[in-house]
Amino acid sequence: MAAERIFDRAVWVRVRGCGCEERRLNIRVNIELLSISNPVHKKDLAVRLTDDTDPFFLYNLVISEEDFQSLKSQQGLLVDFSAFPQKFIDLLQQCIQEQNKDIPRFLLQLVSSAPALDHTPVSLNVVETNPFKHLTHLSLKFLPGTDAEIKKFLASCLKCLKEDKMMLEEKLKKTEEDLTRQLSYTQQ
Amino acid sequence: MAAERIFDRAVWVRVRGCGCEERRLNIRVNIELLSISNPVHKKDLAVRLTDDTDPFFLYNLVISEEDFQSLKSQQGLLVDFSAFPQKFIDLLQQCIQEQNKDIPRFLLQLVSSAPALDHTPVSLNVVETNPFKHLTHLSLKFLPGTDAEIKKFLASCLKCLKEDKMMLEEKLKKTEEDLTRQLSYTQQ
Repeated sequence: MAAERIFDRAVWVRVRGCGCEERRLNIRVNIELLSISNPVHKKDLAVRLTDDTDPFFLYNLVISEEDFQSLKSQQGLLVDFSAFPQKFIDLLQQCIQEQNKDIPRFLLQLVSSAPALDHTPVSLNVVETNPFKHLTHLSLKFLPGTDAEIKKFLASCLKCLKEDKMMLEEKLKKTEEDLTRQLSYTQQ
Repeated sequence: MAAERIFDRAVWVRVRGCGCEERRLNIRVNIELLSISNPVHKKDLAVRLTDDTDPFFLYNLVISEEDFQSLKSQQGLLVDFSAFPQKFIDLLQQCIQEQNKDIPRFLLQLVSSAPALDHTPVSLNVVETNPFKHLTHLSLKFLPGTDAEIKKFLASCLKCLKEDKMMLEEKLKKTEEDLTRQLSYTQQ
């Protein structure tokens, strides 16, 4: 299985549980195309919601071409599966452009049926607000990550962070050497 | 609950599964004293085995004072619970001193009843080899970490690594500024 990352950004999301105050969370939305060749060649769309400040926050959604057909008919979408990822990214970009406005025209909502986001499925909605009403352009249902999924995700974060740290250490060493060399050269 | 770290080092361990070749692994042994005040004040000894190169490698052992009494009688130990942690560390230090020798007198063994170290309990043995025989000074039984435990452990690693990275970034910035300032001062 090969994964091609097509979007990875932290975006502001309005979180709504039942019977509790709305709050804002900075959620990282990661979108990948998963190419699977066995038994038949197909591409799935994988969307992951995480929170850079909370290692245990993980929600997943994987949409296959068949899943997409029911999503398409349920929500009256007019694009096909191959065009959907870019359309979804366009909607996210619209929300990002509006996220610092007092009254954003487009916003992301994370809705849970439970009071808190605690191991219950959530819906990520792209909502347009016009003077007349709220229009939901898209609503995607995510499942909370299991311990095994969170474990795998954290291991991958750890790997990236270790690489970053190693690069930083090298850069620090190189910077010190370069500048010390320049300094001794200038002092001569 | 407060945890006091009293040992944290990577040591070479000989790994033995049933029916497979012996191999060496560099295992991090972490020993902490856990102070618990509720309902009564007591101290547990927590030992954790991890592998810096394998994020999913985690084995745990927690020994309470009561557990220690049975360990003591089973293995004929002569120290009491309060002296045991330091005695265990002394044994580990002896193994570390000998670990680069061709024929170490003291060594650590990790023994599994399964062919591989795959979600089965393991025993960590401190073994002395003299010309006559192998003497097991101590044998501690560890349980493989659950997904939830591995998840928590990885989150704590991630937190430390993020702090390290931030400190490195600051140090890099400061080094660049310092040396650039010195350089411009010298060039004047």
